Amino acid sequence: MTDVADIPQVLTDEIREMLAGVSTATITHQLQMRGMRTTFLAGLKPLLPGQSMVGRCRTLRYVPHRADMMDVLSTPMNSQRMAAETAEPGDVLVIEAREVPDAGTVGDIYASRGFQRGAVGIITDGALRDTPAIAALGFPVYHQSSHGSTWARHHMPFSHDEPITCAGVFVVPGDIVVGDEEGAVIIPAKLAEEVARDAVAQELREEFAIERVAAGDSVHGVFPLTDERRGDFEAWLAAKEQG
Amino acid sequence: MTDVADIPQVLTDEIREMLAGVSTATITHQLQMRGMRTTFLAGLKPLLPGQSMVGRCRTLRYVPHRADMMDVLSTPMNSQRMAAETAEPGDVLVIEAREVPDAGTVGDIYASRGFQRGAVGIITDGALRDTPAIAALGFPVYHQSSHGSTWARHHMPFSHDEPITCAGVFVVPGDIVVGDEEGAVIIPAKLAEEVARDAVAQELREEFAIERVAAGDSVHGVFPLTDERRGDFEAWLAAKEQG
Amino acid sequence: MTDVADIPQVLTDEIREMLAGVSTATITHQLQMRGMRTTFLAGLKPLLPGQSMVGRCRTLRYVPHRADMMDVLSTPMNSQRMAAETAEPGDVLVIEAREVPDAGTVGDIYASRGFQRGAVGIITDGALRDTPAIAALGFPVYHQSSHGSTWARHHMPFSHDEPITCAGVFVVPGDIVVGDEEGAVIIPAKLAEEVARDAVAQELREEFAIERVAAGDSVHGVFPLTDERRGDFEAWLAAKEQG
Amino acid sequence: MTDVADIPQVLTDEIREMLAGVSTATITHQLQMRGMRTTFLAGLKPLLPGQSMVGRCRTLRYVPHRADMMDVLSTPMNSQRMAAETAEPGDVLVIEAREVPDAGTVGDIYASRGFQRGAVGIITDGALRDTPAIAALGFPVYHQSSHGSTWARHHMPFSHDEPITCAGVFVVPGDIVVGDEEGAVIIPAKLAEEVARDAVAQELREEFAIERVAAGDSVHGVFPLTDERRGDFEAWLAAKEQG
Amino acid sequence: MTDVADIPQVLTDEIREMLAGVSTATITHQLQMRGMRTTFLAGLKPLLPGQSMVGRCRTLRYVPHRADMMDVLSTPMNSQRMAAETAEPGDVLVIEAREVPDAGTVGDIYASRGFQRGAVGIITDGALRDTPAIAALGFPVYHQSSHGSTWARHHMPFSHDEPITCAGVFVVPGDIVVGDEEGAVIIPAKLAEEVARDAVAQELREEFAIERVAAGDSVHGVFPLTDERRGDFEAWLAAKEQG
Amino acid sequence: MTDVADIPQVLTDEIREMLAGVSTATITHQLQMRGMRTTFLAGLKPLLPGQSMVGRCRTLRYVPHRADMMDVLSTPMNSQRMAAETAEPGDVLVIEAREVPDAGTVGDIYASRGFQRGAVGIITDGALRDTPAIAALGFPVYHQSSHGSTWARHHMPFSHDEPITCAGVFVVPGDIVVGDEEGAVIIPAKLAEEVARDAVAQELREEFAIERVAAGDSVHGVFPLTDERRGDFEAWLAAKEQG
Repeated sequence: MTDVADIPQVLTDEIREMLAGVSTATITHQLQMRGMRTTFLAGLKPLLPGQSMVGRCRTLRYVPHRADMMDVLSTPMNSQRMAAETAEPGDVLVIEAREVPDAGTVGDIYASRGFQRGAVGIITDGALRDTPAIAALGFPVYHQSSHGSTWARHHMPFSHDEPITCAGVFVVPGDIVVGDEEGAVIIPAKLAEEVARDAVAQELREEFAIERVAAGDSVHGVFPLTDERRGDFEAWLAAKEQG
Repeated sequence: MTDVADIPQVLTDEIREMLAGVSTATITHQLQMRGMRTTFLAGLKPLLPGQSMVGRCRTLRYVPHRADMMDVLSTPMNSQRMAAETAEPGDVLVIEAREVPDAGTVGDIYASRGFQRGAVGIITDGALRDTPAIAALGFPVYHQSSHGSTWARHHMPFSHDEPITCAGVFVVPGDIVVGDEEGAVIIPAKLAEEVARDAVAQELREEFAIERVAAGDSVHGVFPLTDERRGDFEAWLAAKEQG
Repeated sequence: MTDVADIPQVLTDEIREMLAGVSTATITHQLQMRGMRTTFLAGLKPLLPGQSMVGRCRTLRYVPHRADMMDVLSTPMNSQRMAAETAEPGDVLVIEAREVPDAGTVGDIYASRGFQRGAVGIITDGALRDTPAIAALGFPVYHQSSHGSTWARHHMPFSHDEPITCAGVFVVPGDIVVGDEEGAVIIPAKLAEEVARDAVAQELREEFAIERVAAGDSVHGVFPLTDERRGDFEAWLAAKEQG
Repeated sequence: MTDVADIPQVLTDEIREMLAGVSTATITHQLQMRGMRTTFLAGLKPLLPGQSMVGRCRTLRYVPHRADMMDVLSTPMNSQRMAAETAEPGDVLVIEAREVPDAGTVGDIYASRGFQRGAVGIITDGALRDTPAIAALGFPVYHQSSHGSTWARHHMPFSHDEPITCAGVFVVPGDIVVGDEEGAVIIPAKLAEEVARDAVAQELREEFAIERVAAGDSVHGVFPLTDERRGDFEAWLAAKEQG
Repeated sequence: MTDVADIPQVLTDEIREMLAGVSTATITHQLQMRGMRTTFLAGLKPLLPGQSMVGRCRTLRYVPHRADMMDVLSTPMNSQRMAAETAEPGDVLVIEAREVPDAGTVGDIYASRGFQRGAVGIITDGALRDTPAIAALGFPVYHQSSHGSTWARHHMPFSHDEPITCAGVFVVPGDIVVGDEEGAVIIPAKLAEEVARDAVAQELREEFAIERVAAGDSVHGVFPLTDERRGDFEAWLAAKEQG
Repeated sequence: MTDVADIPQVLTDEIREMLAGVSTATITHQLQMRGMRTTFLAGLKPLLPGQSMVGRCRTLRYVPHRADMMDVLSTPMNSQRMAAETAEPGDVLVIEAREVPDAGTVGDIYASRGFQRGAVGIITDGALRDTPAIAALGFPVYHQSSHGSTWARHHMPFSHDEPITCAGVFVVPGDIVVGDEEGAVIIPAKLAEEVARDAVAQELREEFAIERVAAGDSVHGVFPLTDERRGDFEAWLAAKEQG
């Protein structure tokens, strides 16, 4: 397990602001254009309407329960606790639960502790437990399902701050995660800045297209943008930037 | 692919009004009584609360991606564009995506274009992309899931305005589709009028039953209506019509 | 099928009040600690936000449709009707539909009748039909899906007031069911009182933990409660009880 | 639970012989033509090649495990034992295990006892346990999967000789079951004779069709048989009956 | 639906022989290297051990059953019949059944007619019916499941000789299909020759690697082949070709 | 990743012989009685009939493909190679592929290398590739499916000799795995000896039961063994041991 101090932190204020201003669909598209097919966390729903987040991935891995290993896990510093107690401002806790829908992975007390330490979101590809209480905390949470049981029904927390698979996506500690009402997407740390810049540029082209379509234009020429309409776009962009 | 001019248009104002006044459950039951077991689009959820729609089915078929066929599809007039650019007032775009949950099938720009041309709804048995932006358009949309990727993750748009399968239901261009908060149901064009009339009649019997149950009656006799209570129903109906 | 008069009724006002004050997650945990791993109804969602219920389980069993047995079922007193017509105040109708998502199991008229007789909730591991109309009734309902078809698409009502499986949980008439926004959990009748008492006690410990975490404490010591912090908890509890 | 003496026994030697001579596909078709859509046990595979069986259905129902009810089940006469100890010659034990793939439902000792008492087959829509040992017994067995665990991993045996659902089919004690290398099909007791007769007649028509196709004829006229070819068929049949 | 005369036939004796000599795994790899990710028919099993086939794809599309359209389909020349009656030597009938496991798509009579006309294989992503009788014919067949019902349980044959999706792969009439004991893979017609040549070359490199590993070498250098070992490989190849 | 030298090796000849003589069902039961519910690898089938194996677990973990990390993996010593090149006599390679059915995880060349170094089996919860060639090697292999693609379709090999999840079971390097025709089961290293001894004892009791049932006895008393029959069993055992 990587020491927290060694987990990269690439989110500058500028990158964070750019990513907060674009959709997860645009980011996913930018990653697809770079050959990355599997970056959007499939099947996870935001718990609350209208929320979004940008953060650094911290990871927690649940594995199938083994009764012979419970002594090791019953220490005060098991991985579930460590994940909550070592959260840093701007972190998002990303949990691997092998998409098991019927066993809790995080409840309200550990969630509270993580958020109290500065975490800005929680993601699990398994079940929330204490869903109403977690919703009342008001922080962004993405999950597959809700279930009243504790993790021991199927899982045990085995490790944290190591690479995991969440909702079909491979996640390395220090990756960037962005969430909106559509869901959440993982960006490799080293690509965060270029993806952010290109996503902002892409959304400007799409904003132009939407305006033209609303004005009655066909999509031809404006989406995708062709050379014939590039002049129009650039004029629109200049006008927009002037303000 | 059928020419748009050849797709039947059976929706008169009268039929549309009747269908808009009944539930999809009632319509589904009417079709079941005619031996049609599979007409309700299984597993699709309305994107927004409180919406409903009645429209004519226009179809778009996504098939599994094949890299060797992308040149054919990269023309300005691929089927995805054609579906948006040929929408007519009152049409609903019904998309076959083989129930694949993790690849987008329609995003906000094409959706905007379709609605701008008069379409009154979109249905996909795959994933929406740009879900928040599409929700902001305010039109009725039914879908299986949301995902940030573009169609190329698994699909390619192959044809439009030909018979498709959507959410387990076989849909022919020109069929009528009705949606409410429960979901959406497909009515063969040639049955639209008789189903509409019988559905209105069925709902009157059910309204009577609900009133009697609310008044403390047992369901016996009132649902289904028996000969003993038919007089009561007819008196209630006469009173209602005088109203 | 058990006669209604012989179905146990263990819900006193005191037990009902205790259960209404705790979460389904806490109850599920209490049952897990007693060796019961499968008590929370997996995959069922509440129809409406903000609702909860405590009631006695009454059961209805749908089985796969057999055309050769329809005469037996077409009597006025088939099990579907019996379930509605024999509901007693405080009962929750729990339906086994083998988790089939695409065939209705209960519609608005039978639901109305049950609620009119005093039922306080309905649970189905299959599909609701007439979902908007049922939602308008305002009572707690938990379901897997919505579908416009009637039961005959896949099912027939075969028996009531006998042990069933619902959403993976074995349910005996007279069991207690508690629902909240997370979902619903089944409590064996004979354990209802002790589980209620222990759940209340557990939630006090958790309320203390949440308060301490909100005040900046680590989870260590307060969750789970250790001997070092037991004094703090007891002082907090005494103050609260005086308060 | 029905007393064994009250379970119908409609299999005469004649019916048994007719059913043993036709395929499950033909029987399933005969039942479909009578409006019964769900009679073939979906997803179950024969354990051994080349086997077939005809027998009377005896049933055993596994339900989800409940720790609070184990005392009741730990008697010498629990339903699992009763199913084995009351088997009669010609019976097939049909087990409902809710299609759970990862918990055993029958092992070699109970299977041996059933076969020793005259049972002619076992069907489970869950898992066999001790699969190699059961295969060595040589009797017809149909199952969904194999798993090394005992039933307590997910199940408990709750009742026997009552109506159950197996592999999506509703099965009543006394129904007839026929198995071949394709799988197994359930015939209502009261239809056994007519289905047997019509199945034999259908297979004669199909044998004629196969011979004609092998001789180079088109399927037109011979499958399904048309009036033009009926004379040919009848001549063929007469020749065949003369031997 | 494409006229049979217009369906490409690219299989020369040379290409057929090359493809018959390589594995489906090698062909799938060759297609992956050309950017085609989805060419192997997922989840389909060969009916009989030890078989293989190379053929031209002819297609048949089943769609969900619609009672209102049965008159159209009840003609002597429905698509199911046409598929059997127009088979040409070397064709493989590839059936789209939307991966529905519990409704037959092809039975023994139509299969016999197709094989009698020269077809060299049948593939369905749904269920075989009459599995034992089809197995007795001895031809290569790949399928998802077996089921005793006829197609009308869920399907109707709607069209033939048009592009379809089978087991997740998009198939165009005239594509080449190769099957072995692992399964079957679809090759676009225009790539058949180059894929065949490159597959043969790849298998020679792998044969060399297997021999070196059997002789005790590490996989390093021999798989994938590196420049250091290329000389060894070429010597081996020269010896083999002389041999 | 644990150094190979540090992976425990608890298999003595005596333990190996005992485990080779009992069924996986018996071992699974022994582990269930010790509170371990999830030890049998669910859904995996042996590739060849009649095989069995006892070995030490060595692990390989496939994770979802990430294009940005391929440079790291393209070294000569990626985990896939390391797993083959560091196999020791008596090892079984256990592969985590997240139960993905449609992407290969091991092909014939790496399998050959592992077996050539002394491995006694391979297990994957994903797909074999080159299934016919691997079958021809004749070693025990357990897998979920077969697929012609290489791992890059969905996976990349990320690590080896670390704890993994395979077919729902948590596996630690050094655990013992036993396979027979039913499937395979994982035994924690520290329990191997006691489980082996108790499994042998259990099978003696079951052999006695089977003999008694074959002789016409009821299962009562002999399975499970009661005090009344213990004397009989001990006499039988003494006779057997004398021999």
